[in-house]
Amino acid sequence: MRAMRPATGEAFGAEFPRATRADLEAMADTAFDAVDFLADAPGERIAGFLEDYARRLEGDRAEIARLAHEETALPLVPRLSEVEFNRTCLQMREAARCLRDESWREVAHDAQAGLRSTLVPLGGAVVCIGPSNFPLAFNGISGGDFCAAIAARNPVIAKAHPGHPNTTARLFTHACAARDQAGLPAAAVQCFFDCAPEDGEALLAHAGVAALGFTGSRAAGMRLKAACDALGKPASLEMSSVNPVFVASGAAAARAEAIADAWVASVLMGAGQFCTKPGVLLVSGEQAARRIAARAEELMRAAAPAILLSESVRSHLAAAVAELRDAGVEPVCGGSACGPGFRFEPTLCVVSAVQARAVRSVVLREAFGPLGVIVAVEGDGQLVDFARALDGQLASTVVSDDADAAVRATLFGVLRFKAGRLLDEAMPTGVAVHPAMVHGGPMPATNDARFTAVGLPGAAKRFSKALCLDRVRA
Amino acid sequence: MRAMRPATGEAFGAEFPRATRADLEAMADTAFDAVDFLADAPGERIAGFLEDYARRLEGDRAEIARLAHEETALPLVPRLSEVEFNRTCLQMREAARCLRDESWREVAHDAQAGLRSTLVPLGGAVVCIGPSNFPLAFNGISGGDFCAAIAARNPVIAKAHPGHPNTTARLFTHACAARDQAGLPAAAVQCFFDCAPEDGEALLAHAGVAALGFTGSRAAGMRLKAACDALGKPASLEMSSVNPVFVASGAAAARAEAIADAWVASVLMGAGQFCTKPGVLLVSGEQAARRIAARAEELMRAAAPAILLSESVRSHLAAAVAELRDAGVEPVCGGSACGPGFRFEPTLCVVSAVQARAVRSVVLREAFGPLGVIVAVEGDGQLVDFARALDGQLASTVVSDDADAAVRATLFGVLRFKAGRLLDEAMPTGVAVHPAMVHGGPMPATNDARFTAVGLPGAAKRFSKALCLDRVRA
Repeated sequence: MRAMRPATGEAFGAEFPRATRADLEAMADTAFDAVDFLADAPGERIAGFLEDYARRLEGDRAEIARLAHEETALPLVPRLSEVEFNRTCLQMREAARCLRDESWREVAHDAQAGLRSTLVPLGGAVVCIGPSNFPLAFNGISGGDFCAAIAARNPVIAKAHPGHPNTTARLFTHACAARDQAGLPAAAVQCFFDCAPEDGEALLAHAGVAALGFTGSRAAGMRLKAACDALGKPASLEMSSVNPVFVASGAAAARAEAIADAWVASVLMGAGQFCTKPGVLLVSGEQAARRIAARAEELMRAAAPAILLSESVRSHLAAAVAELRDAGVEPVCGGSACGPGFRFEPTLCVVSAVQARAVRSVVLREAFGPLGVIVAVEGDGQLVDFARALDGQLASTVVSDDADAAVRATLFGVLRFKAGRLLDEAMPTGVAVHPAMVHGGPMPATNDARFTAVGLPGAAKRFSKALCLDRVRA
Repeated sequence: MRAMRPATGEAFGAEFPRATRADLEAMADTAFDAVDFLADAPGERIAGFLEDYARRLEGDRAEIARLAHEETALPLVPRLSEVEFNRTCLQMREAARCLRDESWREVAHDAQAGLRSTLVPLGGAVVCIGPSNFPLAFNGISGGDFCAAIAARNPVIAKAHPGHPNTTARLFTHACAARDQAGLPAAAVQCFFDCAPEDGEALLAHAGVAALGFTGSRAAGMRLKAACDALGKPASLEMSSVNPVFVASGAAAARAEAIADAWVASVLMGAGQFCTKPGVLLVSGEQAARRIAARAEELMRAAAPAILLSESVRSHLAAAVAELRDAGVEPVCGGSACGPGFRFEPTLCVVSAVQARAVRSVVLREAFGPLGVIVAVEGDGQLVDFARALDGQLASTVVSDDADAAVRATLFGVLRFKAGRLLDEAMPTGVAVHPAMVHGGPMPATNDARFTAVGLPGAAKRFSKALCLDRVRA
C-alpha cells in the first residue's frame, strides 16, 4: 500500500506492508502483556505518557500537518495545523485528566453492605480503526477512540487508514517514543497498516482483543458490527448520518438567504467530508424553499471543485448522484467528477416532499463530498412527518423564529429520540471536545445510542467493564 | 397455555390465550401514545405509580405468594412471601427514587459552551421477558427490568413466563389499577401471555419497540440477541453463568468440611435454580478435594429430591447429566429424575483437572437444578489456569486463608475481567438490591459487561439514549 496525493492522484512515498494473519496474532498475543500493567499502573504514569505524546506532536506540528495535508488535501491552515491538531492534543490531555481523576469509573461504595463497584478495563486490547476524514483527531493511533481506550486503561492495537499511512507512521513513532519514555510495555500501543478483511476479523476474534472502536463507512461498520456481535465483544461504531436541518416556515420566509449561506458553508466545509455534514435541508414553504435554493445554487456555482480524500470517496459520491438521477432528481448544478486528482463539482439537488417521500432512502442517505439536497415541503406539519420517519442521526438542527415556537418544540420532541445532538439554529458541523458533548445516535449513526464517541469521561466508558467487589478484603 | 403444578405435574387454572401477531402489533402501535407522556411527566407522578403498585402488591401478599408457590414450587416462606416479595417492592421504590432524584441521567451542563447533555428515554417501549425462577422479582411486569425501564421513563410491554401465568395475571391487574389511578396512559404498561417465536421477533422489529430486557436461557437469549443486533436495538440479556468457586490450598486443607457445607447449601438453594448458583467448585489439593467431596456427597444424599420449576428445566438438567456421563463423568450420587411432579435427585460429580480440561464445555456449563461439580486440581497454579480459560460469568468466589494471599490476589486479578461480581469467601447466590451491585458480566453471562441488571440507577441506563442539546434555547 502507498499513499496517494488527492490533489493530483499520484502515489508517493514508501510502500507500507500488509500485516499477515501471523503478524496480527502476535500483536493480540502480546497485548496480554500490557493488560495488567495498564490496569494497575498509577494513573499519573499513563497520564504522563499521553501528555508527553501530545508535547512530542506539538514539537513536530509543521511536518505532521504538512504530511496530513499532502495525503488528504484537507486545508493546511487552519484546519490541519491548528484546529484538528489542537483538538488531537486536547483529547490526549483530557484523557490524562481522566486517568488522574478517575471520573470514568462510576464508583459506588457502601462499607456497611461490603460492596465496592467500579468500571474497570476490558482485559484485552481495543482495536482502533479510524476514518479517512480526520487524519489526526480520529486516527486510530492518536484520535478520540485511542484516547478513550487508554483513558480506560486498555492497550490499543491501531489500524492505519490507507488514506494517510505516512501521517500515521509519523504519529506512531511519537507514540512509541512517549510510551518507552514512560516505561509502558511495548504492547500498550501497537499499530499496523493494512490487512486482508478476513485477517482483520480473525484479529477481533482473538482472546487478546476485547473491543473495537471504529469510525468509517456504514458498509464496513455493519460488517464489523456483525463480527463483534457474534463474538459478544463491545464495539463502538460511528457509521453514517445525514444530519438533517429543519427550517420552519417563519424563519424560512424571514431569512432565506442567510439560511442558505450558513447551510452551504457547512455542506462545503472540509470538502463536505464531515460525518456531521448537514446533507439535507428541509424547508417549510415552497416560495421560501425556492429562494433558499436559488441562493444555494449561486453559492455552489461560485465554489471551486472540492478535492476529495480518495478515489473511493469520489466514486461513492458519483454513485450517490447517479442514484439520485435514477430516482428522477437531476442536480441543479454540479454533479460531475473533474480533475486533476480526486475533484468533484459542488452539487445541489432540490426535491419536493412528494419526491423525497417516494425515494426517501436515496435522498436521506449519507454521501461524503460537496453534495447538498434541499427538500421543499408544503408546511410545518410535513417537517414533523419527515422527522418522525427519520433513521438515527448524529445530529439535527432546527432553524426557527419566535413565530415558529410551536413547531420547534414539536420537532425537538420528536428528534430527541432520533439524534444524539440537537442544535437550535447552529449548523451541526462543529463538534466540541467537551464532557457535555454527545457524538452518537441510534443506528445507523452508531451501533449504540447510549454512548458518546467524543467527550470524556463518557467516551471512555465504551471501553470498560462493570465490576463489583462483594465483601472482598482490602 | 395453562399453568402446571411442579409438585404434581398437573395442569390447573385458566387457559391463557396466545397473542396473535396483530395483537402484538397493536400493543407496539399504541406504545407511542405513552412515549411522550412518560418522557415529559413529572417524575413524582410516575414515582407515585410505582409506589402505589408496591402498596397494592403488599395488600395482596398472601394470595400472590400462594399462587407463585403453586406455580413454581419455590418455598413459600420465607423465599416467596418475604424475601422475593420484599425485593420486588424494594425495586419499585428504588425506581421511584430514581424518578425523583434523576440520578440515572448522567447530566452534564456547561452554560458557557451552551451544552446540556443527559440520558433520555428510548422513544419506544421496552419489551420485558422474565425468567421462570423469580416469579416476582424478575417478572417482566414487576421485576428488575420492568422497574429499570419505567425508571428511565419508557413504556413496558411485558411477556409472561409460561411457568407462572396466573401469578403474572394477578400482578398485571395490580399494575393496571395503579397505572389508571396515577393517570398514566394504558400503553405505559402492557402485558401478553404467549406468542409464536416469529411473532415475538416481529414485535421486536416494530418501530414502537425500542429495546429488550430478557432473563432466561442461553439458547433463547442468543436468538433474541441476534434479532436485536440486526435491528440495532439495545438489548439487555442475562443468560448463562457457572459462577465457579476457587478454593485455594490453604483454605481447602484447613476447613474442607465447612467449605463443603457452604457450597452444598448454595447449590441446593431454591432447588439449584439461581442464575448465581456456584455450579463448579475448584479445589486445590487432591486430599482436601477428597474430603470436600466426601462431605458434599453426605449432604447431597441426605437432601430430599428438589422440585424443579418445570418439565423443561428437568429435561435440561437430565440432558446435562447425560452429557457428563457421556464424557466419562459418573455422578457419585443422584443423577436421576423422580416423582411426583418435576423432581430430581441432588446430584454430585467429582472430576480431576485432567478430565475437566478434556471436557471443559461439559463441566463448565450452566445447568439449573440440584447439580454440583467438584474439580480436584493439583495445586494453586492450576486454579489460575482454569480462571484464565473461563468464559464470562455473573459472579465468582475465591475461598482462601491468610497463607493463600498470593494466589488470592492472582485469582482476583484474572477474574476481574471474567465476572461481573467477585466474592471473597461468600457464596455468590445472594444478589443485594443496591446501587453498588453489579449483576452482569461478559458473554455468555450477559451480552454486555458494561451494565448491571440489578441496582439503580445503573440498571436504568441500559434502557436509555444519550442526548446533547447544543445551544438550544430554554
